[in-house]
Amino acid sequence: MVNIPLLLMGCGEVGRQLLHHIVSCRPLHSKQGVMLRVVGVCDSKSMVAAPDVLTSHLDDEFLLKLCKVKSSGSSLQELANFGGCQVFSGQEIARKVMEFAATLRKLSGLTLVDCSASSQTVELLSQAVNLDCCVVLANKKPLTSSLNDYDKLVSQPRRIRHESTVGAGLPVISSINRILSSGDPIFRIIGSLSGTLGYVMSEVEGGRPFSEVVNTAKRLGYTEPDPRDDLSGMDVARKALILARLLGRRINLDSIKVESLYPVEMGPDVMSVDEFLSNGLPLLDKDIQNRIDNASSKGKVLRYVCLIEESRCEVGIQEVAKDSALGRLKGSDNVLEIYSRCYSKQPLVIQGAGAGNDTTAAGVLADILDIQDLFRH
Amino acid sequence: MVNIPLLLMGCGEVGRQLLHHIVSCRPLHSKQGVMLRVVGVCDSKSMVAAPDVLTSHLDDEFLLKLCKVKSSGSSLQELANFGGCQVFSGQEIARKVMEFAATLRKLSGLTLVDCSASSQTVELLSQAVNLDCCVVLANKKPLTSSLNDYDKLVSQPRRIRHESTVGAGLPVISSINRILSSGDPIFRIIGSLSGTLGYVMSEVEGGRPFSEVVNTAKRLGYTEPDPRDDLSGMDVARKALILARLLGRRINLDSIKVESLYPVEMGPDVMSVDEFLSNGLPLLDKDIQNRIDNASSKGKVLRYVCLIEESRCEVGIQEVAKDSALGRLKGSDNVLEIYSRCYSKQPLVIQGAGAGNDTTAAGVLADILDIQDLFRH
Repeated sequence: MVNIPLLLMGCGEVGRQLLHHIVSCRPLHSKQGVMLRVVGVCDSKSMVAAPDVLTSHLDDEFLLKLCKVKSSGSSLQELANFGGCQVFSGQEIARKVMEFAATLRKLSGLTLVDCSASSQTVELLSQAVNLDCCVVLANKKPLTSSLNDYDKLVSQPRRIRHESTVGAGLPVISSINRILSSGDPIFRIIGSLSGTLGYVMSEVEGGRPFSEVVNTAKRLGYTEPDPRDDLSGMDVARKALILARLLGRRINLDSIKVESLYPVEMGPDVMSVDEFLSNGLPLLDKDIQNRIDNASSKGKVLRYVCLIEESRCEVGIQEVAKDSALGRLKGSDNVLEIYSRCYSKQPLVIQGAGAGNDTTAAGVLADILDIQDLFRH
Repeated sequence: MVNIPLLLMGCGEVGRQLLHHIVSCRPLHSKQGVMLRVVGVCDSKSMVAAPDVLTSHLDDEFLLKLCKVKSSGSSLQELANFGGCQVFSGQEIARKVMEFAATLRKLSGLTLVDCSASSQTVELLSQAVNLDCCVVLANKKPLTSSLNDYDKLVSQPRRIRHESTVGAGLPVISSINRILSSGDPIFRIIGSLSGTLGYVMSEVEGGRPFSEVVNTAKRLGYTEPDPRDDLSGMDVARKALILARLLGRRINLDSIKVESLYPVEMGPDVMSVDEFLSNGLPLLDKDIQNRIDNASSKGKVLRYVCLIEESRCEVGIQEVAKDSALGRLKGSDNVLEIYSRCYSKQPLVIQGAGAGNDTTAAGVLADILDIQDLFRH
């Protein structure tokens, strides 16, 4: 039986879904000879951990209780009353995590699973990598900060996985890694990596005004609470950076050309969400419609894409062929076209749901199972 | 540096392409800390091996020479003159391979890479698995013989990879394995897994007679020398069986419902290839045209697919929605739609070139790199 000790950072919706998956997959993983041992769970304020991470772990009953406590909005501290765990808080957390990593290093190693959305975890993760910890990320931030941080994180490339940072559970990163390791050079990646913007671009194509589509998307819960967080393109830019760095590009977030779908004059500093939705957005309808008509006259359609090619790494609206995988995209699916020596005329296409807690957590879990051989002794 | 000893079985076009890839990827793999050490290469008659598999390997110059000798149609035996190797033949080969496996087991282990098209390798592969060898297959036969053989081969699931048995280098098997290991149950797989039949079905859709399309496909080199080898569906059936067994189905090749695109009266025992192409095939045009028209009246198109769903595992013509990934397929690309809990309404779609020696060999090489952690000590 392979024993993989895990420490989960972040117990928001994805983290909790992961814990649920881990618990419900016990029989399956046991059949595969794998035992996932959750030795600690932390959020930004507190950490609960097994009494002795070498010999004990947080049992399934405890993990499900933890999920309940967190979804009800309570603090992890409440679990102290439940017994069977240690509780830490504040700066003590980082120190304890490193202590656990050092302790477990001798026996089996430790895997840190970052399901947070924090930019604060990168320091701890890099230190953990130095202690030969494995790292599995759904969090894009640690991979999109400085190149220095990035280099530290990926310094042991077999010990890091981050499938769910791009396209949720879609096998994007794993497939790119396979292609690269077979010596097949990738010369172009183009894709729609935002379900929200994918939905918006395919709906406006049908003739609905941009402002109306964004309002509908917000009503349907497809957007962030402030839709400008989607429309700014910054989330796609982070995904583009992750892919570009995977291809070996030595670039930073600020070297990516990002097209925002709203002008600075309509930014969060200038107007409220409501004002933006009712007064700002409609002013943008005409321009988008003109661009659609212009593309259409050339037999093309508009997509909000991430494009990596030669020295270019761009995020924004591009005209794409109507009959390409990208051009045919409808709804909120993600799609990625990869061009390489082996896939030169027709790309390798990966398409499917690229968001959702279930799918994201499933991607994280697949990543954890993927590093199991490092825990075989 | 991780050292992976390889023994290549089969040095036809895929095997030779693999050797070329291995040689040209040396700088890349060295940067990744991996060294692929080819200790032996065999075909159905002979084997050349390093003088001492523990301490030496066949160097790159030798491997390239071997490729030349084999492409010129000569025997591996010729390489004896080239020096720096041992040469074995006949029944001695299997005995020697097992001896190598036993020798290397103590140090690092051995990976057997089956790039042959032989049904004779399964016995040796199973024995090697018993000695903890890793197995990487492009050859479909060992995975599609009896369930007993299959069970032996996959008895150490982390030690076997076979991406290139379905869709060449397309990340089909690796993606399915990821989905399964994350506890996301797959309830339906439907795909076009023959470039030849994909081409034929999309061309007849445009109104060209079936017989004409098959003749063109043969002229373009898209088909086997006898196109009936493609039209019988047996190659797709083997791929279907591999996928079905991956999903846990306990079935054999003969339990798959296979639709042949020609009747027994036109089989190889009854008429020659030429006779089939000029006299047999045209008799089939009308029926195919009727089926196309019938599907079209329902807004559907015909595809030759592999379908795995509930207790069904079938290979043959199905009517599919025009606007599905399958329905939109043009040319010789493969496409696979995977439906699971995470991809329930819209499938996960993987599409791209599913044939070609370069792509197949790249898939094998990616598999080899994927097992590297088992060789870390």
